[in-house]
Amino acid sequence: MDSVRVLEVKESVFADNDAHADELRARLRAQGVFLLNLMSSPGSGKTTTLTRTIEALRDELRIAVMEADIDSVVDAKTIAQTGAQAIQIHTGGMCHLDAYMTEQGVDALLGTTADEAATDVAANKSQSLPDLAILENVGNLVCPAEFDTGASANAMILSVPEGDDKPLKYPLMFSICDCVLINKIDALPVFDTFSLDRARENILMRNPNATIIPISAKTGEGIDQWADWLRTQVAAWKSQA
Amino acid sequence: MDSVRVLEVKESVFADNDAHADELRARLRAQGVFLLNLMSSPGSGKTTTLTRTIEALRDELRIAVMEADIDSVVDAKTIAQTGAQAIQIHTGGMCHLDAYMTEQGVDALLGTTADEAATDVAANKSQSLPDLAILENVGNLVCPAEFDTGASANAMILSVPEGDDKPLKYPLMFSICDCVLINKIDALPVFDTFSLDRARENILMRNPNATIIPISAKTGEGIDQWADWLRTQVAAWKSQA
Repeated sequence: MDSVRVLEVKESVFADNDAHADELRARLRAQGVFLLNLMSSPGSGKTTTLTRTIEALRDELRIAVMEADIDSVVDAKTIAQTGAQAIQIHTGGMCHLDAYMTEQGVDALLGTTADEAATDVAANKSQSLPDLAILENVGNLVCPAEFDTGASANAMILSVPEGDDKPLKYPLMFSICDCVLINKIDALPVFDTFSLDRARENILMRNPNATIIPISAKTGEGIDQWADWLRTQVAAWKSQA
Repeated sequence: MDSVRVLEVKESVFADNDAHADELRARLRAQGVFLLNLMSSPGSGKTTTLTRTIEALRDELRIAVMEADIDSVVDAKTIAQTGAQAIQIHTGGMCHLDAYMTEQGVDALLGTTADEAATDVAANKSQSLPDLAILENVGNLVCPAEFDTGASANAMILSVPEGDDKPLKYPLMFSICDCVLINKIDALPVFDTFSLDRARENILMRNPNATIIPISAKTGEGIDQWADWLRTQVAAWKSQA
């Protein structure tokens, strides 16, 4: 698939992002769609991890992906090759997505607006709505942490080459994530100053409730545990719809 | 050295960042201080590269470093261990530094304000001013690119594990950098999807004039070439003072 849908989203002119995020979350809950906001530094392996995630779960869940970037359609093309529904979101230079920007992506992905979702139109369509929608946020450990996107849960990837001290430097990002994947563990022999124990300690200092899962998106190690976590989250979400 | 000076800087309330950046640049030129703004993703190896840079140049240049982070004093401590003057700048959660924030760091580093620099006070002190001041910006490929810090030149680090497609996704950052270091080339055998040729091509697409230097801050490979580039820049800057 060479052509992907590209959506140029605009930032909200309103100040009430938190309220709007709560509205989006309520709508997604009513529609039975679990939205994961996946964040990380540039190049930590978000897209490769998503490819593995789709492979692990596509036989049991309908999965759709929004790839947010400032420019390019590289990632949406990669995801589309897995057969999953994928759209590319361009942020117009913005360093993050807020709930309004996310909603524009959700509308495109679900084929319904919030208004339609409250009517029979949406009910008729709900058979084909995704169980799991994933927002791959802009690669950035600072700004995306400051804006509630309206997602059901936040996850992030810390990759081994970045170093185990990142929770010390980017406290907010680590404090808001329900799950932290430690990716590229296959490269631990090369990056021998990275300590998994120290990384865990630093992450838990920021968020004692974080689930921490070491993975290698390259070799597939740890992906089963991550898929289990997602499966449990999606089931719990849908049971409350 | 266990304690480092920490400066909590505040963002400007003024809109004329570009004008202020030009003023700061003019002051630094008059004082013969070359200011390098070093940017990258989190964990690309800025601090390790700086440590190597200081080792390579400290016998010929007075070097001082401003380490900007949202939190922690990890990096300033590392730099202080080299014997170079180092201060830690905390951005109060901000994802970038503007010229006003940078100037607060410069004042602290040089021990003079802009007003003093225009008087004999500064002239008397100028013997001990740094030849090369380095601002290690917040780890972020988006926002720092949007704010002129007042630096004499911009450089950035792209590390091999991040992937060679980053110039496609973060166009502005690559377009404003005079020099791009490609770090962690010692890890190329592990990250075999990274192509140095493709990285060069993507960088030059964004900035045809960029100097591109592959390095390994870990092994020291390429640091001589980087030190040469800096040496030339500093000499040219001081000749125009």
